[in-house]
Amino acid sequence: MPKIDIAAIAVRQGCPYPQPFDAPCAGRTRRRLGDAGGLRDFGVNLMTLAAGGWSSQRHWHSHEDEFVYVLEGELTLVEDDGETLLRAGDAAAFPKGTGNGHHLINRSSATAVYLELGSRHPDDLTTCSDIDMKSANSDGRFVHKDGTPY
Amino acid sequence: MPKIDIAAIAVRQGCPYPQPFDAPCAGRTRRRLGDAGGLRDFGVNLMTLAAGGWSSQRHWHSHEDEFVYVLEGELTLVEDDGETLLRAGDAAAFPKGTGNGHHLINRSSATAVYLELGSRHPDDLTTCSDIDMKSANSDGRFVHKDGTPY
Repeated sequence: MPKIDIAAIAVRQGCPYPQPFDAPCAGRTRRRLGDAGGLRDFGVNLMTLAAGGWSSQRHWHSHEDEFVYVLEGELTLVEDDGETLLRAGDAAAFPKGTGNGHHLINRSSATAVYLELGSRHPDDLTTCSDIDMKSANSDGRFVHKDGTPY
Repeated sequence: MPKIDIAAIAVRQGCPYPQPFDAPCAGRTRRRLGDAGGLRDFGVNLMTLAAGGWSSQRHWHSHEDEFVYVLEGELTLVEDDGETLLRAGDAAAFPKGTGNGHHLINRSSATAVYLELGSRHPDDLTTCSDIDMKSANSDGRFVHKDGTPY
């Protein structure tokens, strides 16, 4: 039965970054809906972001498209070109390989809820825009941009 | 700027099936959000389905994962195993290659709104469960299951 039992999905709190880069993302939760439904081509995650929280460190992907759809609340999208407010019903797309990093910040006083989608590619490299960190899907580790470990 | 201007996206009404298979889907609209945002790995479509309408003929995909998330209203998911009611906030996943066809029917009296996601693969074959029709991504045509045209 393909309906997903969302209440049964594990809630993952925060980001798996090394300290101190995990701190701004501590108010994020993720439920992996697509994985729960047996999908492999792309991820679909139900996310919440508490007031003041960041979705992630600002980053871009080499080989994976990304998309967000806001379900509740307000989020500020930050990228090289500046900031854009996203409200419930708004969507944003991040094609792979642009070099223009993005993340979402909840500058409101209420928790925001959104869907986060992304394709999956074994060669993907995530590059952070504002800090010295990158991560390759080949090993999943977060390292300095010269490859040395944290 | 990656925010998608949803109001500017063309609204496509109905399904491109040959007659009479298009008739149950005449009350469907589709807005291609992912395409508007320049994504290529997967499609993200904002859909509306009028009371009484079908999302599609019941079908399954050989090489493409699918996912739906209900934003407003109620939809009945129909597959080999029976029917499941989906309400706003519910999600369902359809891994490729199962052979278990699915579609959504709006048995309520109000329009339903949902997101439809799907990966993209050049070798995909869509097979209909209840009628003599299939379609290959290689040419996009809807034909009889023996390959003869409508």
